[in-house]
Amino acid sequence: MDAISAIVAEIAEEMRAQEHRGKVADYIPPLAQVPADKFGIAVVMRDGTVHTAGDAEDPFSIQSISKVFALTLALGAVGDQLWQRVGREPSGSAFNSIVQLETEHGIPRNPFINAGAIVVCDVLLGRLQPREAIGQMLRFVRMVAGDETIVIDEVVARAEQETGFRNKALANYMRAFGNIHAPVDLVLGTYFHFCSLAMSCRQLAMAGRYLMAGGQSDGHSVISDRRARRINALMMSCGHYDNSGDFAYRTGLPGKSGVGGGILAVAPGIASIAVWSPGLNSSGNSHLGQLALERLVQKTGWSVFEPRAQ
Amino acid sequence: MDAISAIVAEIAEEMRAQEHRGKVADYIPPLAQVPADKFGIAVVMRDGTVHTAGDAEDPFSIQSISKVFALTLALGAVGDQLWQRVGREPSGSAFNSIVQLETEHGIPRNPFINAGAIVVCDVLLGRLQPREAIGQMLRFVRMVAGDETIVIDEVVARAEQETGFRNKALANYMRAFGNIHAPVDLVLGTYFHFCSLAMSCRQLAMAGRYLMAGGQSDGHSVISDRRARRINALMMSCGHYDNSGDFAYRTGLPGKSGVGGGILAVAPGIASIAVWSPGLNSSGNSHLGQLALERLVQKTGWSVFEPRAQ
Amino acid sequence: MDAISAIVAEIAEEMRAQEHRGKVADYIPPLAQVPADKFGIAVVMRDGTVHTAGDAEDPFSIQSISKVFALTLALGAVGDQLWQRVGREPSGSAFNSIVQLETEHGIPRNPFINAGAIVVCDVLLGRLQPREAIGQMLRFVRMVAGDETIVIDEVVARAEQETGFRNKALANYMRAFGNIHAPVDLVLGTYFHFCSLAMSCRQLAMAGRYLMAGGQSDGHSVISDRRARRINALMMSCGHYDNSGDFAYRTGLPGKSGVGGGILAVAPGIASIAVWSPGLNSSGNSHLGQLALERLVQKTGWSVFEPRAQ
Amino acid sequence: MDAISAIVAEIAEEMRAQEHRGKVADYIPPLAQVPADKFGIAVVMRDGTVHTAGDAEDPFSIQSISKVFALTLALGAVGDQLWQRVGREPSGSAFNSIVQLETEHGIPRNPFINAGAIVVCDVLLGRLQPREAIGQMLRFVRMVAGDETIVIDEVVARAEQETGFRNKALANYMRAFGNIHAPVDLVLGTYFHFCSLAMSCRQLAMAGRYLMAGGQSDGHSVISDRRARRINALMMSCGHYDNSGDFAYRTGLPGKSGVGGGILAVAPGIASIAVWSPGLNSSGNSHLGQLALERLVQKTGWSVFEPRAQ
Repeated sequence: MDAISAIVAEIAEEMRAQEHRGKVADYIPPLAQVPADKFGIAVVMRDGTVHTAGDAEDPFSIQSISKVFALTLALGAVGDQLWQRVGREPSGSAFNSIVQLETEHGIPRNPFINAGAIVVCDVLLGRLQPREAIGQMLRFVRMVAGDETIVIDEVVARAEQETGFRNKALANYMRAFGNIHAPVDLVLGTYFHFCSLAMSCRQLAMAGRYLMAGGQSDGHSVISDRRARRINALMMSCGHYDNSGDFAYRTGLPGKSGVGGGILAVAPGIASIAVWSPGLNSSGNSHLGQLALERLVQKTGWSVFEPRAQ
Repeated sequence: MDAISAIVAEIAEEMRAQEHRGKVADYIPPLAQVPADKFGIAVVMRDGTVHTAGDAEDPFSIQSISKVFALTLALGAVGDQLWQRVGREPSGSAFNSIVQLETEHGIPRNPFINAGAIVVCDVLLGRLQPREAIGQMLRFVRMVAGDETIVIDEVVARAEQETGFRNKALANYMRAFGNIHAPVDLVLGTYFHFCSLAMSCRQLAMAGRYLMAGGQSDGHSVISDRRARRINALMMSCGHYDNSGDFAYRTGLPGKSGVGGGILAVAPGIASIAVWSPGLNSSGNSHLGQLALERLVQKTGWSVFEPRAQ
Repeated sequence: MDAISAIVAEIAEEMRAQEHRGKVADYIPPLAQVPADKFGIAVVMRDGTVHTAGDAEDPFSIQSISKVFALTLALGAVGDQLWQRVGREPSGSAFNSIVQLETEHGIPRNPFINAGAIVVCDVLLGRLQPREAIGQMLRFVRMVAGDETIVIDEVVARAEQETGFRNKALANYMRAFGNIHAPVDLVLGTYFHFCSLAMSCRQLAMAGRYLMAGGQSDGHSVISDRRARRINALMMSCGHYDNSGDFAYRTGLPGKSGVGGGILAVAPGIASIAVWSPGLNSSGNSHLGQLALERLVQKTGWSVFEPRAQ
Repeated sequence: MDAISAIVAEIAEEMRAQEHRGKVADYIPPLAQVPADKFGIAVVMRDGTVHTAGDAEDPFSIQSISKVFALTLALGAVGDQLWQRVGREPSGSAFNSIVQLETEHGIPRNPFINAGAIVVCDVLLGRLQPREAIGQMLRFVRMVAGDETIVIDEVVARAEQETGFRNKALANYMRAFGNIHAPVDLVLGTYFHFCSLAMSCRQLAMAGRYLMAGGQSDGHSVISDRRARRINALMMSCGHYDNSGDFAYRTGLPGKSGVGGGILAVAPGIASIAVWSPGLNSSGNSHLGQLALERLVQKTGWSVFEPRAQ
């Protein structure tokens, strides 16, 4: 067993022993039913080797982590024009806050809060029907993960749709400002399907390789290296809602969390990392997931702020 | 002339040609009088070589860049206890906003907005008289810069004190919540003196070496490598006020700006960089300074999100 | 012609000469098409005499004035339990603001802003189907006005429904907090029909008699005198959105405005007054309507703050 | 004993029996030491008869009730120009909130919240020295109360000054926007002295006569009847901080409360009323004071919304 495998195993061991695990999301039944004691970790190195521990093969609902893939698709579709409709700044407020939209005229702060990701979906629907956009997303994730078995959990998607009143409020509110163009129901239907992607830590870490490797995955170019750097920058600034500064402080890694308890983190040039533990902290980020990444960086020195040879 | 020198010269050339230069801060006369056409850049490499161009030897008022040094001193004095009195999150609002303090009970969002830096000063005054704290700061900056000629501009300090009503409001407001302990006037007197440090790009880039080199400067340890990484993380998340996400997106570097038009940026392990141009954008950051750093990263690949060899 | 008739005629004359008339609401075509030069006034005295001038017989869209009638019905249905779901305080913000709902957990500030009136509709739907609630409203307004010709303008109702994204946002947002119980579409359908009542100044002033006469209308009791006083108090505090304090200051009368340009005002014990002019001020209240009421009070001394004999 | 005397005695009796009395203000020692079981009431009728019960002769700190007298003086000094520097709208937030000042550029919402009253003091200092302004206030209150024994409690004034950090924040903040002209310390010194007026219920009710009697007091004109109506309107809209709507709903009287537990209420043309009980509700208004006024109105029908003969 090599060094990284040993580290990954140690971390899984340590996390198993933690008593405080946060609170599992309970706003929809399919998420509330996930056992709180799950923990998985997968690390894909630049050379393609994969190291996993714990429940790394269990699929879970990636939820807001899908916002990274949706942003990638939208930048592919319209390029920097996207930034006319969504900002690039941390929000300074909760993931589903509506306050900022009022004072900033319906322009969400960044593509990684709910309002921003809903605009991103609307941008994709500028060229596609919802069914096509959902199909495009699924093909994209399967492609970057190199795994055709990834699916969307329709039970989760339906449950989101039945209870997503805050998201309906956000979408209608932005529509009132003219920043949603397609019918609100179609935009949200697309958005909820994206959120309902079910992936394991292994699949998620595989999918994140293009962000680790300057836009490359399996030897072909998914996006430019410049765009990869920029998406990483956004993940660092805005990837953990109103807890992003703290996550950057503790880990020094770009990362994106979801209320399903997953986190995708990137050590540029080195590794793509996925962790999963369903219990959340008060900001809606995986409590043990953040802790596991903090430990990983302590043991490996993968922080982007680590001095490096040029 | 080596590669970096050439790049630095090119950038200075390009900046000189820019027409749009932002708006020079005018809230105190000593800042308003600075010529808008100034531009300087200094790059200190890990090996100690220094590359400068433009007005790199002109001293300017570093203003909020001093918040980085004050934070370093406060962490040295009280360690992580500091975080009980100030947060680590981007503010999502202007540098001098008071709104967040009301809803968050007098705890400022981070040490790089005015309210946070005022708390940092108050922490230093827990052990020192104002005169001592100002002396300690001056000694610290001279030490890390390796330059005994650095001074505090008393004319600027006095002008700040005469007009700093918003800062007085912030300090009194936090005092009402019990988050300022020393008399408000002493805390602000200290704060305004810190802001009034006058340094050239060369001096500032020299001073930033410890943040570039894992806490080391001139062969001795200023702070631990862990603390250096963390300060860099905070600079990336919060160093440009409500424009921090955009700066990270464009440059991929930790940086801290001041309304004097200076920016200190860090490429960990590679270089400490200072730029200066007095014209500011609407968020209070140097317009050309940000642009110069964006160019520098484009030409050198120094973004922390650039894939690197392990 | 008696004194009041003369005053009413003078005011209509004066208003006709005003150059600055405000801005006609243009968010739906049926409102945007109303001629800006319309002005009507009707005063119903306690003894039943009616004084009108100008376009007092033209029906217009009463819009938010219907919130007074909806509140009357909801208090009749559930009494003071209503106040568990909506407050009694001026909002300090715009009529369609969503900010306050986030910090106050989905409880709108008062029943005269949009969010509050939507909750009032939801309360009515606790016992009735939308069609029944709309029928009840129509019967109520016809009864208090003593006029069976009053109708709901279906063209306006449909236009509201097609463009009411902010109201959809408000309703979904409150539903997320559990403060809307019926399906959002049904609640809003009801709300938009209430807003689309078409009434003339004469009809509106007649309808307001029960608020002028301690709850009595045409010799029978519509509501108790205590409830009439309280509804008047709410109209005084909250009846002109974020302009309510100024309206109270200028007129000293309880009143409720609508974006159709109408205002219903009450001089308790003396008169029920309706004015109409489509041009609005920046807070969404009829510019000339407010001015006309100010003049009326100057000429009659009907302010509730006028010293009176006991 | 006549009818009003009997009613006043009954109310004092009933209040004595109340268990829930609110929470005595404790931010300065002189207020914290006031016994919680105090209750006083005084009613001055238009004919000059005075009815009192309970602790109606005990002096207490009138605190924010002084804002009514300060407004009267400022309107006397500069007339409607005052409204360029302070609004006339309820604030929708707490009495000492600073949030609104940021979004509304240093213009406080109304003269009855702290920020607004501080501006009113600054307006008075446009023509007078602090000592003169304090002297003018004392003479004014003595004159309208017809009582030369009224004093300012210097112990309270000093305690306010030592702890008034929020007020210092408000004043400095408005100064930063240019809406405070005199030195902040002088403005606050004046403000704190106004707040420290010590008056009994009897004295306060006597002082309020000019607001009850169309601006007349003791047969001479203090202000015009129009100004008296307008001040009453402001008291109704804004006199109980973020609880003003509820107070209007329950009592139908213009009133102004202070954190010392006093309330001055006005039944125009009928009576000037003062109540006092130190326990406060969560909005900072006297709990029993509000209840006593509610009872008084129930027993007398003095609500301004009571239908009246013309």
